[in-house]
Amino acid sequence: MSHVSKVRLTLEYDGTDYVGWQWQPNGPSIQGAIEAALERLLKKPVRVSASGRTDAGVHALGQTATFVPPFELPLRAYVAGLTSILPRDIAVIDACHVPDDFDARRSALGKRYRYRVLNRPQRSPLRRRHRWEVFQPLDVDAMARAVQPLLGRHDFSAFRASNCEAKSPVKLLTRADIRREDDEVTLEFVGDGFLKQMVRNIVGTLVEVGLHRRQPESVAATLQSLDRREAGPTAPPQGLFLVEVFYKPVEGLPARSCRT
Amino acid sequence: MSHVSKVRLTLEYDGTDYVGWQWQPNGPSIQGAIEAALERLLKKPVRVSASGRTDAGVHALGQTATFVPPFELPLRAYVAGLTSILPRDIAVIDACHVPDDFDARRSALGKRYRYRVLNRPQRSPLRRRHRWEVFQPLDVDAMARAVQPLLGRHDFSAFRASNCEAKSPVKLLTRADIRREDDEVTLEFVGDGFLKQMVRNIVGTLVEVGLHRRQPESVAATLQSLDRREAGPTAPPQGLFLVEVFYKPVEGLPARSCRT
Repeated sequence: MSHVSKVRLTLEYDGTDYVGWQWQPNGPSIQGAIEAALERLLKKPVRVSASGRTDAGVHALGQTATFVPPFELPLRAYVAGLTSILPRDIAVIDACHVPDDFDARRSALGKRYRYRVLNRPQRSPLRRRHRWEVFQPLDVDAMARAVQPLLGRHDFSAFRASNCEAKSPVKLLTRADIRREDDEVTLEFVGDGFLKQMVRNIVGTLVEVGLHRRQPESVAATLQSLDRREAGPTAPPQGLFLVEVFYKPVEGLPARSCRT
Repeated sequence: MSHVSKVRLTLEYDGTDYVGWQWQPNGPSIQGAIEAALERLLKKPVRVSASGRTDAGVHALGQTATFVPPFELPLRAYVAGLTSILPRDIAVIDACHVPDDFDARRSALGKRYRYRVLNRPQRSPLRRRHRWEVFQPLDVDAMARAVQPLLGRHDFSAFRASNCEAKSPVKLLTRADIRREDDEVTLEFVGDGFLKQMVRNIVGTLVEVGLHRRQPESVAATLQSLDRREAGPTAPPQGLFLVEVFYKPVEGLPARSCRT
């Protein structure tokens, strides 16, 4: 019996019409759509395993997921063939072979998330599906000051969803960039891992700072409290994008992409 | 009987689910949605008049339309109130008073259109609603060379839809910028007026040049032929945005915006 290589997919999706990555009884999931398309392509049921769940309504530019196909196919069959079967709001951007012991979640070194806020007095028909619309002006300088104490390795329990199942609340946040361009405020976060709703809870807190409802200096105390009730509201899902998942370089593969 | 001022609205809309600006029997129009919302706000039927029609599926960042309300209301009633009644894919960005003889179409000095092409081997779930997806690489330098002979005042009959009702096919094209940024190619056109499907027919022709299916030098001959059959196919509507309509400065109003 010949050995069949594990495959890693890089996925883009518009999460608007999904209950999230993971299969759930209450609606269509990204995972379910991909497994259904793989079964159509391969004529066998296949289980895919992602770098992590994305919540209902959250988007991805570079989610990763692995599976072991029942037989060897050229990688183009996944980028072109699988994409042609998938619904229009999901696409395979890239596919590569990975070692058997590669695990999309456990092998990940870190992730990059982007959160996009539309900040003008009027709502935007063209951008509403992919932005949090905040109508009052945001003080971006205050937000950039407020986020500084979150950089580094901390117990992020204050920004963790109550039903988060992560073993440890300690994560390393290596980057938190906040910038305004015209009527858009973009927040970008890089870290070795993120707790459930951690990015959205940080963004909700920073937007309160930006609206002058909370002092920039208070965020350090919020972090130290380890108390979710001290942080701001959870920012809505449609502004959040999982941009990229980082991995150790695999033999013959670049670290950040497996573009074929 | 007191005088009621004519109102000019600036509108943003996502054209995906509409048959175009103008009322039509075969589906919902932007005009119909705005007139219905105005009737709900004002309790009287009101007819709105736009700077021009946009085709089915075409978007707008700054379409303009005027109407005479049955009674005076503060302009905020239109920006905030009317927007709250409108469907989520239409919004009033701005409102101002204009003289009685102001006409959204005839008073316009010019317009700016933008056409956005996604140019990468994979389709994009997050951008598909607002881009033409071209999977083969485009030679943007060749496209930029090809567009040069179109600048200036010309008879644009070669790029005019067969059912175009404009009195004259002669228009002045003052700007045509084509640029690539990562996997996006953006074409921007400014002129004193545009024939029906003129931008999409120019873009369809330029994309043929970018794919090396047509010589850059051939576009001058296409223009001179005055023959629609010489030009390329009509680019799809979802990449096109009416960005801005230019007007003569009105007393007390800046030329390019009437932001209140």
